[in-house]
Amino acid sequence: MQRVRYRTVEGIYWGEVSGGRIHVLSGMLGRPTGEIVDLTDVTLLAPCDPRLIVCVGKNYVRHVIEMGGSGDDLPGEPGLFLKGLNTLADPGDDVDYPSWTNELHYEGELAVVIAREMRNVAREDALDHVLGYTCALDVTARDAQRRDLQWVRAKSSDGFCPIGPWLETDLDPTDVRVQTRVNGDLKQDGHTSDLLFPVADVLAYVSRFMTLGPGDVVLTGTPDGVGPLQRGDVVEVTIDAIGTLTVGIAGA
Amino acid sequence: MQRVRYRTVEGIYWGEVSGGRIHVLSGMLGRPTGEIVDLTDVTLLAPCDPRLIVCVGKNYVRHVIEMGGSGDDLPGEPGLFLKGLNTLADPGDDVDYPSWTNELHYEGELAVVIAREMRNVAREDALDHVLGYTCALDVTARDAQRRDLQWVRAKSSDGFCPIGPWLETDLDPTDVRVQTRVNGDLKQDGHTSDLLFPVADVLAYVSRFMTLGPGDVVLTGTPDGVGPLQRGDVVEVTIDAIGTLTVGIAGA
Repeated sequence: MQRVRYRTVEGIYWGEVSGGRIHVLSGMLGRPTGEIVDLTDVTLLAPCDPRLIVCVGKNYVRHVIEMGGSGDDLPGEPGLFLKGLNTLADPGDDVDYPSWTNELHYEGELAVVIAREMRNVAREDALDHVLGYTCALDVTARDAQRRDLQWVRAKSSDGFCPIGPWLETDLDPTDVRVQTRVNGDLKQDGHTSDLLFPVADVLAYVSRFMTLGPGDVVLTGTPDGVGPLQRGDVVEVTIDAIGTLTVGIAGA
Repeated sequence: MQRVRYRTVEGIYWGEVSGGRIHVLSGMLGRPTGEIVDLTDVTLLAPCDPRLIVCVGKNYVRHVIEMGGSGDDLPGEPGLFLKGLNTLADPGDDVDYPSWTNELHYEGELAVVIAREMRNVAREDALDHVLGYTCALDVTARDAQRRDLQWVRAKSSDGFCPIGPWLETDLDPTDVRVQTRVNGDLKQDGHTSDLLFPVADVLAYVSRFMTLGPGDVVLTGTPDGVGPLQRGDVVEVTIDAIGTLTVGIAGA
């Protein structure tokens, strides 16, 4: 089932999509209110309401290698980084290409949205805490990533995390295809079956020291094929059984 | 003036302290409601309500040197890292010493709480956007900081950012003394006049790529003298003209 977060002139709501129409819910985890609205009458928002956006770096072997690593020194634990809440962008929002970088990169990813509190959860139970799955673009200023003390400017500048277009609540995340296209050209084509740390392992690991809560987001890592963006580009992140997140690259 | 955020059985409120009593405000940036409560009848909370906690690493020269750096390769721009909202802890909360680290360190710091949106603000105007200043303990798992891809587990585990006890709204942050004591012994004794990047410069820099908003927190860096904590320790961060934040170190 597709769960959407959307805006109308009256406010921000959650709903479930069926037959092209939205069955309104009383909240992210709520029940149907009985009200129905047309998908065409709303603006879709990022389908999450996080206090935390936690990301995994270096989670696909071929991406580790393309970033200059070796297949022999793969991480023994998930390597995490954070994106601030200022990065959250909605489907349809453009990303501004900042003036201080010359190397803005796309990184298409499977994103997980949490349904209920996760603290010290075993990997066997981790996926029971997931509300659904969606597409994310981990926008990255590669030059700042190399230069700065930590990956804050590189990963956490305003609007650097478009997410959407909706949550798929009935997905097995162990083998989905993650593709990124730039102006229609296929650039990344990965499968979550190639994740060094599968989704359940990542969630369990994070929950050992960060309590995840309803609406929080975990980005699971990007496949190989990352590369530069130009102003005017259109990026599409497509995940089978979910859909496509489309992001324009703007900026003077 | 001291501005407090506090809890009663009825809810969470903001107020201003005068003569040992709290003059209740209608919100963080609100006006007096006319109601007055006794300080002894409330539980003080971290005096902020952030969407972002942004921190500066390596902002005091002698701390850079004690961490193995050289005085010759000082950073040309503030080196930032993030703490997630899961780290926020109230005055009086203990920090749990996690089982996965053997090297939990204290880092006492001056914290800044933002009053209004800051985006591309010049350094000359930066302090006009500040609501007030308080004490923070940047709890750090030094071993994880050395080992992990980024400083997430090291800096952003649950409860790793106690803040308080209140905001001082009438403070010039350019030369205040920041001291940290462990079990009464003075361990850190710095002055913000020694900051490589003064508060106004840090805020202006951050605002070039992260929009800061009301209630957001910026930690300005720690002086030299950092060191290990043990379970049962009591840490005090004292800033002249603000007060003392007291944090117990708990854990089995």
